[in-house]
Amino acid sequence: MRYFDDLQVGDRIELGTHLFTAEDIKTFASQYDPQPFHMDEAAAARSHFGALCASGWHTIAAWMRLRVLYAQREDAERLARGEVLAKLGPSPGFRELKWLRPVYAGDTITYASEVAEKRVTRSRPGWGIIFARNTGTNQRGELVMSFIGSGFVERRPGAT
Amino acid sequence: MRYFDDLQVGDRIELGTHLFTAEDIKTFASQYDPQPFHMDEAAAARSHFGALCASGWHTIAAWMRLRVLYAQREDAERLARGEVLAKLGPSPGFRELKWLRPVYAGDTITYASEVAEKRVTRSRPGWGIIFARNTGTNQRGELVMSFIGSGFVERRPGAT
Repeated sequence: MRYFDDLQVGDRIELGTHLFTAEDIKTFASQYDPQPFHMDEAAAARSHFGALCASGWHTIAAWMRLRVLYAQREDAERLARGEVLAKLGPSPGFRELKWLRPVYAGDTITYASEVAEKRVTRSRPGWGIIFARNTGTNQRGELVMSFIGSGFVERRPGAT
Repeated sequence: MRYFDDLQVGDRIELGTHLFTAEDIKTFASQYDPQPFHMDEAAAARSHFGALCASGWHTIAAWMRLRVLYAQREDAERLARGEVLAKLGPSPGFRELKWLRPVYAGDTITYASEVAEKRVTRSRPGWGIIFARNTGTNQRGELVMSFIGSGFVERRPGAT
């Protein structure tokens, strides 16, 4: 992780892609969102979605996984260059989550994250809070989900 | 599902409980949120959380599962009484998600959902949108997560 003070509004990172296979969609749904249109092709065809599609929570879980893997790769590269890593604190939560289009079986979603706002908090000296707009876009270039996440990030030692 | 017109602000349902075992926490995290404090007791002990705790997305996924199962039980009961079921449409998203306290291995979370707001939309005749405040509370009575979810619900035929 980069220090809070080194992150700028507008900084954008590409997190990678996730292919939502029918099997993947059904596995997630059977555990966490067992609705027929996420579990069964025939039931999905009769639903308002028209075809098997992923749980909205699955669309976000795939984002989370890629976000964590990105941070781990970035940290490994910084360590390899002998840099000090900033600590990442807990996330207080998220806002404005929008599921804009269904994610159907066979769709590949590309995820990105862009710093939307940064704020120093008096309640946690030595830390700042970063708000990032996170997005998923399908292979047709259509936005499928968007939300603003937040997380505490350590400040550069001595920064005020 | 009850019709939009039969749901009232303040209506509250208890969805049930989920016990977050260490194994359950690690399984979710290994698939969707592979951070050390969700995967390994020793790493978690060294982190800001102090002990193994669930991914925030896991806390919500467990809510989603109980919400779906509740709706399926309710629908089965209505069908058994010969009632007509209202259709539940897609969810446009959620807002104000807050992770207020960590959910540690061994915690049992009780979930509830309360109608916070209802709104008729001109864009979808025959449907209304319900906003519900969803909460998770641990065995010590502490709120661990809260968010406002939304979903389209069919209107009673002829309702205006």
